[in-house]
Amino acid sequence: MQGQAQQQAYDRGITIFSPDGRLYQVEYAREAVKRGTASIGIRTADGVVLAADKRSGSPLMEPSSVEKIHKADDHIGIASAGHVADARQLIDFARRQAQVNHLRYGEAIGIETLTKEITDHIQQYTQVGGARPFGVALLIAGVEKGTPRLYETDPSGTPYEWKAVSIGADRAEIRDYLEENYREDMDLDAGIGLAVEALGEVNEDGLAPDGIGVATVDVETEQFSQPSTEELEEILSEHDVLASEGDAAEEEE
Amino acid sequence: MQGQAQQQAYDRGITIFSPDGRLYQVEYAREAVKRGTASIGIRTADGVVLAADKRSGSPLMEPSSVEKIHKADDHIGIASAGHVADARQLIDFARRQAQVNHLRYGEAIGIETLTKEITDHIQQYTQVGGARPFGVALLIAGVEKGTPRLYETDPSGTPYEWKAVSIGADRAEIRDYLEENYREDMDLDAGIGLAVEALGEVNEDGLAPDGIGVATVDVETEQFSQPSTEELEEILSEHDVLASEGDAAEEEE
Amino acid sequence: MQGQAQQQAYDRGITIFSPDGRLYQVEYAREAVKRGTASIGIRTADGVVLAADKRSGSPLMEPSSVEKIHKADDHIGIASAGHVADARQLIDFARRQAQVNHLRYGEAIGIETLTKEITDHIQQYTQVGGARPFGVALLIAGVEKGTPRLYETDPSGTPYEWKAVSIGADRAEIRDYLEENYREDMDLDAGIGLAVEALGEVNEDGLAPDGIGVATVDVETEQFSQPSTEELEEILSEHDVLASEGDAAEEEE
Amino acid sequence: MQGQAQQQAYDRGITIFSPDGRLYQVEYAREAVKRGTASIGIRTADGVVLAADKRSGSPLMEPSSVEKIHKADDHIGIASAGHVADARQLIDFARRQAQVNHLRYGEAIGIETLTKEITDHIQQYTQVGGARPFGVALLIAGVEKGTPRLYETDPSGTPYEWKAVSIGADRAEIRDYLEENYREDMDLDAGIGLAVEALGEVNEDGLAPDGIGVATVDVETEQFSQPSTEELEEILSEHDVLASEGDAAEEEE
Amino acid sequence: MQGQAQQQAYDRGITIFSPDGRLYQVEYAREAVKRGTASIGIRTADGVVLAADKRSGSPLMEPSSVEKIHKADDHIGIASAGHVADARQLIDFARRQAQVNHLRYGEAIGIETLTKEITDHIQQYTQVGGARPFGVALLIAGVEKGTPRLYETDPSGTPYEWKAVSIGADRAEIRDYLEENYREDMDLDAGIGLAVEALGEVNEDGLAPDGIGVATVDVETEQFSQPSTEELEEILSEHDVLASEGDAAEEEE
Amino acid sequence: MQGQAQQQAYDRGITIFSPDGRLYQVEYAREAVKRGTASIGIRTADGVVLAADKRSGSPLMEPSSVEKIHKADDHIGIASAGHVADARQLIDFARRQAQVNHLRYGEAIGIETLTKEITDHIQQYTQVGGARPFGVALLIAGVEKGTPRLYETDPSGTPYEWKAVSIGADRAEIRDYLEENYREDMDLDAGIGLAVEALGEVNEDGLAPDGIGVATVDVETEQFSQPSTEELEEILSEHDVLASEGDAAEEEE
Amino acid sequence: MQGQAQQQAYDRGITIFSPDGRLYQVEYAREAVKRGTASIGIRTADGVVLAADKRSGSPLMEPSSVEKIHKADDHIGIASAGHVADARQLIDFARRQAQVNHLRYGEAIGIETLTKEITDHIQQYTQVGGARPFGVALLIAGVEKGTPRLYETDPSGTPYEWKAVSIGADRAEIRDYLEENYREDMDLDAGIGLAVEALGEVNEDGLAPDGIGVATVDVETEQFSQPSTEELEEILSEHDVLASEGDAAEEEE
Repeated sequence: MQGQAQQQAYDRGITIFSPDGRLYQVEYAREAVKRGTASIGIRTADGVVLAADKRSGSPLMEPSSVEKIHKADDHIGIASAGHVADARQLIDFARRQAQVNHLRYGEAIGIETLTKEITDHIQQYTQVGGARPFGVALLIAGVEKGTPRLYETDPSGTPYEWKAVSIGADRAEIRDYLEENYREDMDLDAGIGLAVEALGEVNEDGLAPDGIGVATVDVETEQFSQPSTEELEEILSEHDVLASEGDAAEEEE
Repeated sequence: MQGQAQQQAYDRGITIFSPDGRLYQVEYAREAVKRGTASIGIRTADGVVLAADKRSGSPLMEPSSVEKIHKADDHIGIASAGHVADARQLIDFARRQAQVNHLRYGEAIGIETLTKEITDHIQQYTQVGGARPFGVALLIAGVEKGTPRLYETDPSGTPYEWKAVSIGADRAEIRDYLEENYREDMDLDAGIGLAVEALGEVNEDGLAPDGIGVATVDVETEQFSQPSTEELEEILSEHDVLASEGDAAEEEE
Repeated sequence: MQGQAQQQAYDRGITIFSPDGRLYQVEYAREAVKRGTASIGIRTADGVVLAADKRSGSPLMEPSSVEKIHKADDHIGIASAGHVADARQLIDFARRQAQVNHLRYGEAIGIETLTKEITDHIQQYTQVGGARPFGVALLIAGVEKGTPRLYETDPSGTPYEWKAVSIGADRAEIRDYLEENYREDMDLDAGIGLAVEALGEVNEDGLAPDGIGVATVDVETEQFSQPSTEELEEILSEHDVLASEGDAAEEEE
Repeated sequence: MQGQAQQQAYDRGITIFSPDGRLYQVEYAREAVKRGTASIGIRTADGVVLAADKRSGSPLMEPSSVEKIHKADDHIGIASAGHVADARQLIDFARRQAQVNHLRYGEAIGIETLTKEITDHIQQYTQVGGARPFGVALLIAGVEKGTPRLYETDPSGTPYEWKAVSIGADRAEIRDYLEENYREDMDLDAGIGLAVEALGEVNEDGLAPDGIGVATVDVETEQFSQPSTEELEEILSEHDVLASEGDAAEEEE
Repeated sequence: MQGQAQQQAYDRGITIFSPDGRLYQVEYAREAVKRGTASIGIRTADGVVLAADKRSGSPLMEPSSVEKIHKADDHIGIASAGHVADARQLIDFARRQAQVNHLRYGEAIGIETLTKEITDHIQQYTQVGGARPFGVALLIAGVEKGTPRLYETDPSGTPYEWKAVSIGADRAEIRDYLEENYREDMDLDAGIGLAVEALGEVNEDGLAPDGIGVATVDVETEQFSQPSTEELEEILSEHDVLASEGDAAEEEE
Repeated sequence: MQGQAQQQAYDRGITIFSPDGRLYQVEYAREAVKRGTASIGIRTADGVVLAADKRSGSPLMEPSSVEKIHKADDHIGIASAGHVADARQLIDFARRQAQVNHLRYGEAIGIETLTKEITDHIQQYTQVGGARPFGVALLIAGVEKGTPRLYETDPSGTPYEWKAVSIGADRAEIRDYLEENYREDMDLDAGIGLAVEALGEVNEDGLAPDGIGVATVDVETEQFSQPSTEELEEILSEHDVLASEGDAAEEEE
Repeated sequence: MQGQAQQQAYDRGITIFSPDGRLYQVEYAREAVKRGTASIGIRTADGVVLAADKRSGSPLMEPSSVEKIHKADDHIGIASAGHVADARQLIDFARRQAQVNHLRYGEAIGIETLTKEITDHIQQYTQVGGARPFGVALLIAGVEKGTPRLYETDPSGTPYEWKAVSIGADRAEIRDYLEENYREDMDLDAGIGLAVEALGEVNEDGLAPDGIGVATVDVETEQFSQPSTEELEEILSEHDVLASEGDAAEEEE
């Protein structure tokens, strides 16, 4: 409804509403999220799964240095999509909040509590001048008193709780795949399978173990854990999304 | 009276009046409120009712994570419409004010007192530079010394007391419906009924129990309370606004 | 003398004079005052009267929540016109100054003293950057050592003392009416009568008791007091400005 | 030599010199002074006189509330022209400086000392960003160790000492009249006469006692004093500038 | 080499270099200096002379209030040209520095030391944002351990030491006159003579004793001293630059 | 996809996202990196190698003053490309962090830990207003508990871990050469050889010992070490990239 | 490659990179350096030489007040080119750093250490907003533990070490002359000779002793020293660059 010239007039400063009530800088930060490779979260009956596309552009780069999935506390993992350096700031914030909770209350922080502390932090950067919004979305996955929980944060600072969700590139395609194939009663292994299959849907040449990250928190141990490269290769192979050698190494700009 | 080119000249900065004495940034923040889904408040003889449209865009999203109605204190509920992350800031502010009142005076905060503390906070963001106004309206409902009270706050920081009111999308249609059907002597159940019927008016495919939120504070217990999903389904059915399966899951952009 | 294009160049920032020595932001704030409904003050031989048009746009709004007349101290009332949320800030400021005076000097604050503390506060917002001026005018009415006093403050921070004055919409028409009909020796009841008649002049469909506010401070009790709805109805009827049912409920945008 | 378009480029911010070395914001503030009604100061052999045009636009306004002449200390009067609210700030500043001098040194502040403290304060607002200059000029008149002194401050913060001077509207005409008729050896009554005659020169319908302010500080008592309305009427009549009833009440916008 | 349109692009803010490495705001401040009336400094074998054109525009202004020459310490005089209110700030700064030196080291401040403290202060206003440069140049003249010294400061904050120098209007003409007629071995009276003759060169109607200021610091007493009006009249007459009555009173805009 | 005029609208301020979610100021800072001469890092089985092109434009410049490789701690070297003065700030920051680690924990700082402290520091300059991003990339090379590690930081504040990498001019050509010739099991001498050969690839006139910098940290000593000029000459000669006299001294603009 | 219109878009603010990674404000500050008269530094086997063109525009100016060469510590001299007032700030900074070193470590500051403290200080003004870069380059010359050192700082904050170097006007011509005639084994007198000859190359009318400054720090005494005017005249004469009387006094704008 608004022409392009008019839109430009309202998108330069974060503290300004457009005549139709939108915050363009926050919407542009969402575009930065879409420019990042995909991350997926899936809540299953016995735990939560995080999976992320972390292909790098060069065989000389250490795959482990492409940071998409982080351990925030023993029982919480966080996957990100978007501006990598911004993600690191929020992950650090999350870790500090988790530690403060241990120190202050002698117990592990709740998943919802942590999520809301992060979204409050994000919101400040959308209302007060002098800084830009965070150009990153997070998936916060964990187990709280035996219950698996999965949250998303977006650049506006809104928290959402999901059964299954994806952030970053190809969000629409992956969501369609998840909506079709997700079942609330699936177990953790089925969840991992669904996640890698969804990633495979949007990577036609298949996935390499080095090119993806997977993490889980199960309801029994309540511990963040990541499969070994060998285990990952087996999983990818089992779900028919393992790339043949050479294919997975294509460039990412 | 003012042409569009001229309007643009005065709407970029919050601390600037237009030649006809308007604060455009505050008016644009009101547009952000209209972009949110509707919330309704109704004051009855034996309590206050809050109801909110909280449909999400995906069956994979946890309905409980769409935050439209919040408990601010034992005797106070707050419904919001507009920018979700901004609403969270004001709800947190409200909760802190309520707690401070308990600590300082050993008694529950008054509904009008709380409302005015919130509107004073909102006003600051419309006069002092360096931040944008809050893009959210609130309905503050509670019982104070046996009397039900219902307030609205808008992005300018003005408090209004209402018998029945709606904020967010479709405000005009819902107001017409409320003006026609509201009676001051209706009881709490009739109030709940009027609220869901009003929401039903603007949702032609009906409402799902997961897609709306309802809360009440009654004059006897002076306690915030929310019906269970089963109770909600019964209420919707009773008032002929229960969606048939599938209809209620349409997308919200 | 100045063309419109040139005017625009000097009205964007409060700290800037135009080439002809004007502060446009302050002048635009005066427009915000004119956009508010009218308030009237009248000083009589035995007290001061405040009256205000406080019609709301909806029968569902609580009339008492339309704030136009406020008690600032036992002996001082304040009526406002313009931006409601700004008015609340100045009223709060006035109440704090009145309380501080009680605490510090053990006596009630003088009407002129209070007025000047308020105008000094307002002036700061017109000279120092980082905020906009207050978009509101006040009438400050009280009795000081047996003498009735009536002051106006405007958005520039200038104090004026009046025998009778109006602020807000229809200022010119009401002033003409007051100049014609005011007599310094009128008593308080005559003052109330003159005030409601003046309001009636600019409300051709008459006034409803709920749609106006009236307050007085008389020289004997030196107490702020407001007539009951019944008393108001009687006064309106007596002065032939009582609206017939239904007429007074017209919309105010 | 400079075209209008080019001038505009340098007059928006106070901290900027134009290519020809001018500070336009200060020059525009001088225009604000010219927009104010005239004030006159006259130094005579036995004291100083201040006189000010203080006509108001309405018979309902209290003449005493039009503030043009202020007592700054027992021995100092200050008259102003220009932005009224700005004048109040500088008067308050002057009074505080006078009090501080009493407290710190146990004696009355010198007229030149006070003037320079005021001009230093004014200058800051012309060099440091974040505020606009004061849109007001002052005449500071007093007696210091038996000697009458008369100073002017302008919006640039420059102090001038005068034998006779006027600020505000009609400055050029009044100056011409003063230059023609001033004699250094005139006594205080002659000084008052010259002042009201000069004001009369530019008010063709004459002056009303309520429409002007007069104050003196004589060398003997060293006390600020203002004639009563009756005395003023007599003075005006004596000097043939007393307005006939009705004439003096014309509007001032 | 640079066109006018391009120049304009770089002269709005003090902290910005133009493409050819110039600071336009500082250069414009130099224009403010040229707009001031002339001041002259002359160093002779037995002392330094300061002389200044201080004609005022009105016979009613006290000549002593036109401040061009100031005593900064017993042994130091300062003459200024340019923005008067800015000059006052630097003179005050100089006096404070001189006093601090007495307090801290128990001896009079050196002329060069004082000059450099002033120029460092001036430089800050040309590099750090939030303020404009000082629109004034100073001549700092004094005797330090028996040696006469004469310095100039300009709006960039550069100190220069001179044998003879002029600042303000007509700088080029006066400099030519000084270069032609200055002799290092001239005595103080000859220096005064040269100064008033140089001023006379650019005031074709001659000089009035009230219209100029003269001060000296001689090497023997090391005391700042100013001739009386009678002595000044004699000097002007002796050097054939005394204005005939009436001529010297012409207007200065 | 975006035209040039539109791009310009979003690249002036660091805190602003473009409509497609990019931070142009960060991308331009990457261009500053490309304008710097190349630096190379290679991780081998028994240590890490840093090599840098440090030709200067003049035979009169001391080669040692062209700073491209720095010792950050006994076990860590850092090579830079881009804005030299910015690099110095980050190197100083790195050294302070390394020292603080020694003081606080009594042990050498980890390579990854140090890298992330540096990237967090860099990120702040891309999100908070009031400063520009760092226009420099770093290679951080060291040995941590017997394991060689090699990291890159870019102007966005993202850390990458590499087996072999180049920053600065000719990045693409050097990367191609490294990808073709790198073997994970090469020893330190082979690593040095590969580095100088890669630099030779893009310097067709060969390299002079004074025109390059080389440093290593080997897994045994865990000590930063740099070959002597003689050793360098031998290495260059051995790998056929030694410039004949005269050739290597060509200008660098 | 970039057109002029586009360049203008990126050179207004110091904290902004241009699309090709350049900081225009820093480059413009380099132009301010070129506008200054030349300074030369030469490192010889037994000491360092600084020489500077310090012609003034008037015979009435004290030659000693044209500051081009400064003593920073007993063993360190600094020559400058560019904005004189900026140079004074950096010289003061250098002196404070040298004194702090004496106080803190009881020994003289190293030449490289001092240079880097100065360049770090300069860099801050190129990255953090609110100020402009320093428009000056310095040559820092001294002897450190028996070794002569010669550094240059530029407006970006980059330090360079040189055998021989010039800054300011005619840099290219002087560099060519130095490259042709410099020999590392020349003694201090030969260095002084080379410096004055180089200055003579670009001053076709020759040099006057008053129009240049020369300073040395020799390796034996490690003391900053400056030749007397007589010695200078002899040196100039000996190297055939002594101006005939009158020639050297031409104007410098």
